[in-house]
Parts: sequence; C-alpha cells; structure tokens
Amino acid sequence: MSKQTQQSAEERLIAHYFKPLATHPGAFGLGDDAAAIAPPAGCDLVLTTDGVIAGVHFFPDDPPDTVAKKVLRMNLSDLAAKGATPFGFLLALALPQGFDEAWLAGFARGLGEDADRYGCPLLGGDTDHTPGPISVSIAAFGTVPHGGMVRRAGAKPGDRVVITGSVGDAALGLRLRRDPSAARHWTLAHQQEEHLRARYLLPQPRNLLADVVRAHASAAMDVSDGLAGDLGKLCRASGVAAEVDVARLPLSAAARAALAREPALIEIILTGGDDYEILATVPRDRVKALHAEASALGVAVTEIGAVVAGAGATRIIDADGKALALTQSSFSHF
Amino acid sequence: MSKQTQQSAEERLIAHYFKPLATHPGAFGLGDDAAAIAPPAGCDLVLTTDGVIAGVHFFPDDPPDTVAKKVLRMNLSDLAAKGATPFGFLLALALPQGFDEAWLAGFARGLGEDADRYGCPLLGGDTDHTPGPISVSIAAFGTVPHGGMVRRAGAKPGDRVVITGSVGDAALGLRLRRDPSAARHWTLAHQQEEHLRARYLLPQPRNLLADVVRAHASAAMDVSDGLAGDLGKLCRASGVAAEVDVARLPLSAAARAALAREPALIEIILTGGDDYEILATVPRDRVKALHAEASALGVAVTEIGAVVAGAGATRIIDADGKALALTQSSFSHF
Repeated sequence: MSKQTQQSAEERLIAHYFKPLATHPGAFGLGDDAAAIAPPAGCDLVLTTDGVIAGVHFFPDDPPDTVAKKVLRMNLSDLAAKGATPFGFLLALALPQGFDEAWLAGFARGLGEDADRYGCPLLGGDTDHTPGPISVSIAAFGTVPHGGMVRRAGAKPGDRVVITGSVGDAALGLRLRRDPSAARHWTLAHQQEEHLRARYLLPQPRNLLADVVRAHASAAMDVSDGLAGDLGKLCRASGVAAEVDVARLPLSAAARAALAREPALIEIILTGGDDYEILATVPRDRVKALHAEASALGVAVTEIGAVVAGAGATRIIDADGKALALTQSSFSHF
Repeated sequence: MSKQTQQSAEERLIAHYFKPLATHPGAFGLGDDAAAIAPPAGCDLVLTTDGVIAGVHFFPDDPPDTVAKKVLRMNLSDLAAKGATPFGFLLALALPQGFDEAWLAGFARGLGEDADRYGCPLLGGDTDHTPGPISVSIAAFGTVPHGGMVRRAGAKPGDRVVITGSVGDAALGLRLRRDPSAARHWTLAHQQEEHLRARYLLPQPRNLLADVVRAHASAAMDVSDGLAGDLGKLCRASGVAAEVDVARLPLSAAARAALAREPALIEIILTGGDDYEILATVPRDRVKALHAEASALGVAVTEIGAVVAGAGATRIIDADGKALALTQSSFSHF
C-alpha cells in the first residue's frame, strides 16, 4: 500500500515547478482543488482568457520561458487595456506524452519571472497529456474600482484615437522568422532585425498605463489581431466609425526601414496582429492629460486619428488622402 | 473597406452560438475583451480549472452536447466539493481546421442547457484553431461565505469518511465502452449496461450538497481520479491516514453484478476515476445531521470508513479484514 502514501508524477511536477509561483495565500500552495480569493472591497474582478498552441501561436523551438511569458503577457495586455490591475491567474497546460522536463522547467521559470514582475501570481491550474501539440490556456484576473472596467463600447464622435508604443513590429518579426532573407531585402541593420524578432517573441504589455486609461479613455482594447480589425471591433461595439491617418502611425525605425523598401508591408503592419498595444479613444479635452501622464510613466502614446459618426467602419487614410483598401482587415482564428 | 464593417467568421460563430449563454450582465454579451464581476458582499470567489481533450478524456464520437456538459460538470463538481455555489465560467475552445459546425452547435446547446440548469452562465472565452484534437478548458467560479471554502486539509483522526452517490460506475462504463463484450461476461441486464455507460458519459455533480458539505465536513474533495488515490491526497493534505471498508462502498446494482463475476474489478472501481462524487470527512457528531440533510435533498451519502492517525496512507480493508494491495492507487495525468 506504500504507493498511496506517495505523490504521483503529476503531483511531483506541480509541487516542484509550479508551487513556488503560487504565492497568494488563497492558492493554498496548489495543494487543494480550488483557490479562494476576495477582490478588495469596492472592486470588480475583471476576467479574461487567452491561450497559445505550438505551431499556431508560437514556434515549437521558441524558448520555453518566452512561450510562458508570451501567453501570460497576452492576458496581462487585456487587463491593461481594460484599466485593471493584475490579481492572479489560472493555468491549463497540455503536454505531449514524453515531453522534455527541461522544457517544463524553462516554462515554469519564465512564468514565475513574469508573475513576479507583473504582480500576478499563479492561483491554480490543470495539467494533462495531449496527443496534439503543446497547448497553454490562461484565465487571468484583475481588479478595477466597481464599474470602472474600460469598455470597447463608449467611443463618441469627436474623440481622438490613440495607441501606445508602435504598431506592426511583431507582424514583421513573424515575417522575418518565416523568411530570414527578408532582413536583407529590407536592408535592416542587425539591431533592427533583432528588434522586430523580439517584438514577435515577447510582447510588452502596457500594464503601467492601466490607471491612465481608466482615467481618460472613453473606450479601449488591446491590439492583438491587427490595428485595422481591432479598431473596427471597437467601432462596432461603440456604434461609431473612425478615421486613421497612416502618416501618424507610430512605427519603429525598423518598421520604417522595411516599409520604405516594400510599401505593401503597410497591410501586414495594420492587420498582422500580435502588437499587444493599447488602442483607446479619448475625449478631445483629455488628450493632453493622457499624454502627460503616459509620458511621466515612460510609455509613448500617439494620436493616430479620430472617431466620426458612422456604423463601425474604419477608414485608413494614406499620405495622398485616399482610403487604403486592405484585403483582410484582421487576423481571424476561423 | 467594406470588410472592416463586417464581423469575422470567429465573431459570427461566437455571437450565434455562445452569446445566448452569456446571460450575466458582467459578460457584456461577449462583446468585450473581458468580463467584470463582483462576488456578493462577504463572499470569497472559489476558482477552479479543468479541461478535456478528444481521445484522452472523451471519445471523438461522443455526442457534442454531452462533451460540453461533461467538462462543465467536472468543474461544477469541484465547486460542489468545496462548498461553493456556481457563479459563472470562462471557456477556452480549440477546434481543428474544417471542424463540423454541427458539432459546435451541439456543443453550445449542451453547454447552454447545463449553464441554465446549474445557474452558471458563460462569462467569456477564447476560440482557436488547433492542428491537434478538439480541446476544451473551463475556468469556473463559485462563491462561498468569506473563509468558507472546504479544504482538503482539515480531516482529524476520529472523523468519519463519507462519499456521495456510488463509486466505480464511470470506470466500469469506460471499460464497457472499450470492450462491449464485457457486458456479456459480467451478465449485465441491458439497463445495467446503460447505467454504467451513462455514468461515464455524463457525471452527476453533487452541487445540491454544497451547503451541507460546508456546514459539516472537516475536509472534502471531489473524486475524479479514483477513490483510493483521491482519499490519499486528502489524507496527505490533512496529515492523517484513513481506513476504508470495501464492504461499505456504495456500489450500483450494475457494479455489484460486474464485481460478482470478476472480483478483480475492485481495483478499477477504486482507482478508475471519473466518479465526480464528493468525498468528505465529517466529525463523528456531525454525521447524523449530514445524513438527514443530504437525504432531504435526495442525495445518498454513505459512510465508508474512518480517519486515523498516520502520514497520508489509505488502507482499503476487504471482507476478510486484509488490506487490499492496489497496483496503481490513482489515475495520474503524467
């Protein structure tokens, strides 16, 4: 009967790799079937879920610590755009039979580093074997003052459209990953190439800006499926339209260099996805305060257009004043 | 630019099949990036996550409505054992390219029926394509009075060990599914065979009993990986041991019939898993009240043994007073 006094292999892996990440007392050190948490008084809990699958959202040979960070940051980016402070997360992990324990060790290390960095501890999880590829799903929780979640709905004609950071880098980084010769074609400096690749591998969610977004935005969402399509979603939810000025898009030096050599890349920049920047609409009289507060936090925010009356459409205006015709507005999972 | 005023295929599927399940106002009709909820004042939120993968946890030809119900009920069973009232859930769904929309329609229908039945609405989700099998992960939330979650830890020597419903049916149902000729070998009546198969296909979580468990149990968990192993987990968390009397195990007529023909099935009954019954330890002076209250709710509860001093071991005592030696104490995912 000695077996029954012993941990199973699953319990051992969880205790060794994931228990150290479960720093919230309500996670009970992952030693129970569930976690128990209480949001701070007067706060709502904001809930989101996003996941990655090997060969779909990341390359099977990506370093496991960056895979873990990417999937957690995808969720953190949602919380940031909703104005929420990270609280914790649940992890569902499916691994192939005979997976490499070193992969799991790297994954858990990266996850722990970001859980610390963003103040978002592991609250619980579920592990399984799968005959398919590695698959990771996270359900993340944040807090906002009651009723304070920033919605997609809320944009009004006259509001300004703003975005954090830069757009298109990750999509270009993915292109480079698939076709390394593009770096030569685009005449990128080594550092520029590395910048684009890093932006694909590891998002930089704008959680620093959550309170500023909540204070000033009339609507917001994070850009994960491309600026053009995601702005369309925000417009449809708000019952408005928007015009974006291509000339005002915040592009990195690397993206500018690539675009100069291959102007058709504008489509990838606008629709490729994986930006994980915050797209927000801001009443005109709040723009100055937003810029000042974001700047004090070291986060670039760029005004790229305006909300106008209309029914959900997004017009992207090029340097000649003509609307761009994109063949696909947004990355769609189906 | 007309494409940008249109929903993507993903948005259309979500709006058509899943929006009707998002009845909580904080789900925003699935039209936002996140949900916002506030647990009732004075309550903790209990968080759990569990999932299924085609070919691992269900058969690819299982009816899609029962797949949906099974994965939701697996999570509801965790909430029940923790003494929590269902509040809502997040859904992460990965479907192969070219999946059958009829499958999705059946899945969503079954999920909606159980979301209604158990008062557990859909709060949000994530859909993806996968090169692997269909995979469903749920993060479910329940509420308990602050500090009231029933833990694995808490069992004390002298407490009685109780379990709801019957054990082993689902594991025998799985055996029948894999080897239909076993029904003949076990001389099962047609109705008995159907009972075992149904118990594998669709758990009956004991959410009716959540308040009773919270009122009387010193420790509890749901039995998903087999009684023997799960009782071992509870004992290890509580720093105690337990003795279970095989003769007292609640077995269905079908399980009794099968066991009479093939005594070695006791191992499958004790370790096969998928029971989704509540295993609890109860102070001796609470057993009577627990039985009365469970009986009033129409849920069978059976006393199967006792908690004793010791370090995590479970002794399963057969009719001759000898401890059973199980070759594997519990289903393990690794």
